[in-house]
Amino acid sequence: MDIEQFRKAGYQAIDRICDYYYSLEERPVVSQVQPGYLREALPESAPEKGEDFQLIADDYQKHIIPGMSPWQHPSFFAYFPTAGTFEGMLGDLYCSSIPTPGFNWSCSPAATELEAVVMDWGAKLFGLDSQFLNSSGIGGGVIQTTASDSALVAVVAARSRYIRQYHTDVKQEDLIMYTTTQTHSLGLKAGLVLGLTCRALEVKIEDQFALREAVLRSAIEEDKKRGKHPFIIIATIGTTSSGAIDRLDEIGEVVKDYPSLWIHVDAAWAGVTLACPEFREVAMLDSINQYADSFCTNFHKWGLVNFDASAMWVRNRKDLTDALDITPEFLRSKHGDAGTVIDYRNWHLGLGRRFRSLKVWFVLRSYGAEGFRNYIRAGIDLNNYFATLVRGSSNFSLVTEPSFALTVFRIVPPSVTDPIASQTLLNSLNQSFHARISARHDIWLTQTMINGIFCIRFAVGAARTTKAHIDKAWKLINEEAEVVLANLGQEGRD
Amino acid sequence: MDIEQFRKAGYQAIDRICDYYYSLEERPVVSQVQPGYLREALPESAPEKGEDFQLIADDYQKHIIPGMSPWQHPSFFAYFPTAGTFEGMLGDLYCSSIPTPGFNWSCSPAATELEAVVMDWGAKLFGLDSQFLNSSGIGGGVIQTTASDSALVAVVAARSRYIRQYHTDVKQEDLIMYTTTQTHSLGLKAGLVLGLTCRALEVKIEDQFALREAVLRSAIEEDKKRGKHPFIIIATIGTTSSGAIDRLDEIGEVVKDYPSLWIHVDAAWAGVTLACPEFREVAMLDSINQYADSFCTNFHKWGLVNFDASAMWVRNRKDLTDALDITPEFLRSKHGDAGTVIDYRNWHLGLGRRFRSLKVWFVLRSYGAEGFRNYIRAGIDLNNYFATLVRGSSNFSLVTEPSFALTVFRIVPPSVTDPIASQTLLNSLNQSFHARISARHDIWLTQTMINGIFCIRFAVGAARTTKAHIDKAWKLINEEAEVVLANLGQEGRD
Repeated sequence: MDIEQFRKAGYQAIDRICDYYYSLEERPVVSQVQPGYLREALPESAPEKGEDFQLIADDYQKHIIPGMSPWQHPSFFAYFPTAGTFEGMLGDLYCSSIPTPGFNWSCSPAATELEAVVMDWGAKLFGLDSQFLNSSGIGGGVIQTTASDSALVAVVAARSRYIRQYHTDVKQEDLIMYTTTQTHSLGLKAGLVLGLTCRALEVKIEDQFALREAVLRSAIEEDKKRGKHPFIIIATIGTTSSGAIDRLDEIGEVVKDYPSLWIHVDAAWAGVTLACPEFREVAMLDSINQYADSFCTNFHKWGLVNFDASAMWVRNRKDLTDALDITPEFLRSKHGDAGTVIDYRNWHLGLGRRFRSLKVWFVLRSYGAEGFRNYIRAGIDLNNYFATLVRGSSNFSLVTEPSFALTVFRIVPPSVTDPIASQTLLNSLNQSFHARISARHDIWLTQTMINGIFCIRFAVGAARTTKAHIDKAWKLINEEAEVVLANLGQEGRD
Repeated sequence: MDIEQFRKAGYQAIDRICDYYYSLEERPVVSQVQPGYLREALPESAPEKGEDFQLIADDYQKHIIPGMSPWQHPSFFAYFPTAGTFEGMLGDLYCSSIPTPGFNWSCSPAATELEAVVMDWGAKLFGLDSQFLNSSGIGGGVIQTTASDSALVAVVAARSRYIRQYHTDVKQEDLIMYTTTQTHSLGLKAGLVLGLTCRALEVKIEDQFALREAVLRSAIEEDKKRGKHPFIIIATIGTTSSGAIDRLDEIGEVVKDYPSLWIHVDAAWAGVTLACPEFREVAMLDSINQYADSFCTNFHKWGLVNFDASAMWVRNRKDLTDALDITPEFLRSKHGDAGTVIDYRNWHLGLGRRFRSLKVWFVLRSYGAEGFRNYIRAGIDLNNYFATLVRGSSNFSLVTEPSFALTVFRIVPPSVTDPIASQTLLNSLNQSFHARISARHDIWLTQTMINGIFCIRFAVGAARTTKAHIDKAWKLINEEAEVVLANLGQEGRD
């Protein structure tokens, strides 16, 4: 493809993306294709002769688009949002137009420098302590691929610091990392990847599934008595299942007594709410600033930036470079030491890295801090509206208090007077309900199981969702619930 | 930004990318900015109010473009190429237009299915054994971020298999991974990340820096005698420094006696040459097919696909899922087990993943297998032409035989009759030479140090490089060498 062919194909791509967004709401929110559909549609091998790009672009429309569930659909309430903006797309396009492996400053200075700058913008937007700024020369921010990578990097850095500073002779087998039973699987996976024991601490519904001081303290004491070495706790601000917020204030108090323990705060989803002063207390900003060794939130979840861009800040960059830098001491540059020039290769797992700060820069400038906050607030307002509908219904009940833009609820019909005694019935009822919802293609909700309770998650955050979409969702939810409840009545009469 | 504003900004982006490529050759190949230039140019925080996108797009041109060294410049001969094509850009644009975390089939079926299909296309293009195909249901291919990630995943899988199948009681401290002294730093970094010992085996110049049977065998025997457990060897087809090719045929013979040893073949750069039948013997295809447990080549290096897209194939997908799948057995889907539906989250380190197969699909279709091969051949032809110029010169000498599209050379003036005795002088001379070349902005070459020899690397592969650019490079190289040699004569006379 020559330059003019690219211009033509590029214009067409832009136009088709516009068409796609004009028609977004009419599309199914869940792709309706069957497993294996694409393998049947495509040849078994690459073509021998090159094909005309128009044919390829048309095949994209024909074969790929129908197989993509649009996470940006206004009736997408599943998982957590995967934000996408036009600004983010343009950032990805420009980034792709000058591919660079970006592993150090000199291979493309702008890539390194912009990342250092926008991560400082992000830290300030979220109210992080100045120690987390790249400009501090002490801590700093780096874009990782996902929150899983951020957590993995944190565990590697924590292990390295623990062994270096405290227990040079510890066996890997004796190291223990802590999560809770509500932590995202990233904790367990980090343990699996690194061959480390991951202990998931129990959390209770009466604590809104938050990790509390007593549980952590007794686990540490117990493990230390067994000769084990706890070295990191992954605390969550906004768990996946229910948006639970671990009591970072209490965790911080415990860790004062065990300073070798690293605190990684995974706020992959909810961290962006820190942009709004009114949510900083509930999102534990003070404790993050006081206690966290590392903090992660994903711009690509609820932060308006197209996947991927996971933001990670550390209190002390040396913890990363000591763990990940394979450059011999005598080769470390003065620039690097002074904090002016960051060799980001030593802040993540691999070597090469994409120029992802570009799209973050585009988004933060185009929205401004004000626009960013308004978007977050709108999602929370819509969720609060939904939670109010649930609260006002006789057929539904909240499982936990709404958290930011997430409501976890289930059907509890008026006939059930003791939900605990009727757990099996309720779970079965809600499973049927979720199966019915999932058979539709005009709404997408995900399920979860928390401490034995089968629940439905309702997560707001797609940029195009309005009050009308919440009303429509509530109508559909009630329709499907009516059917399930009618069936229940029917079975009862048989 | 609304849809029509996006259309306008999108057209402009396409036009400006066209302008950029029209002017590519006139731009400096090495960015001329100074450390810290961007922080000085940008505000300290995100703006409070959103800004007009035109301002942002103009700032990209003004502040970012000058800080990007264009790796696609026809006079870029540094590192290894970072391929970029217009087809790849369009793939990235479409991918970014429907952001999806892509962690399993159902979250966006096309993303999973296309990856499974194009990785089979790639396996066939490169002549890999049918066991490596996704369609085999046994092995399969997956796109990782970089070769570092591919290697890290291979080490995790190898460790898991070793412990599970052979030595359930082995201590992590006793595990040993092998690389050579010429292996890319990805080996050492994987060891650092995983807390495992990485032993770099010595390779010799008389073997063209290839790992041979005797060295590997004696290392294994020695380590086993010490109670250590070697569990993986990372072999390279085309090392970074000199394009060395480890003797995979001999390594395979050794491993027949130690079947618990995993062979990972890192062909990040040179693996794409397997597309051409005439390079399959030198690139050890038969041995890869016979012995490799995993194989990696980067489409984003010399494979025409915009960064990032590292292709990794495994002989047995179960080795990946056994090591990385945190899904409880009872939740594993039947689809997944049958190989129709791959949950790629269990084939890599994180959870979410971009839809990178789209750009690979675009590139392979637009070029066709024929176009892909022609591009590889053109790069090798140009490099052979360069190597011929070096051979015919009285001032320069090859350090090793040219490897694919890489020539490693240095100045050895006729006055030096014993290069070994004059090593210090030659190294100093070549350092001065490289410093002079690096001060230019119309060519980019990187240095390397191999077994005490300071060398210059000349790597061909940018899509726009022609014979005229090689001639120009050769002219510049000679001009700078003349100056250095004249200085040497001058010093000699002092």
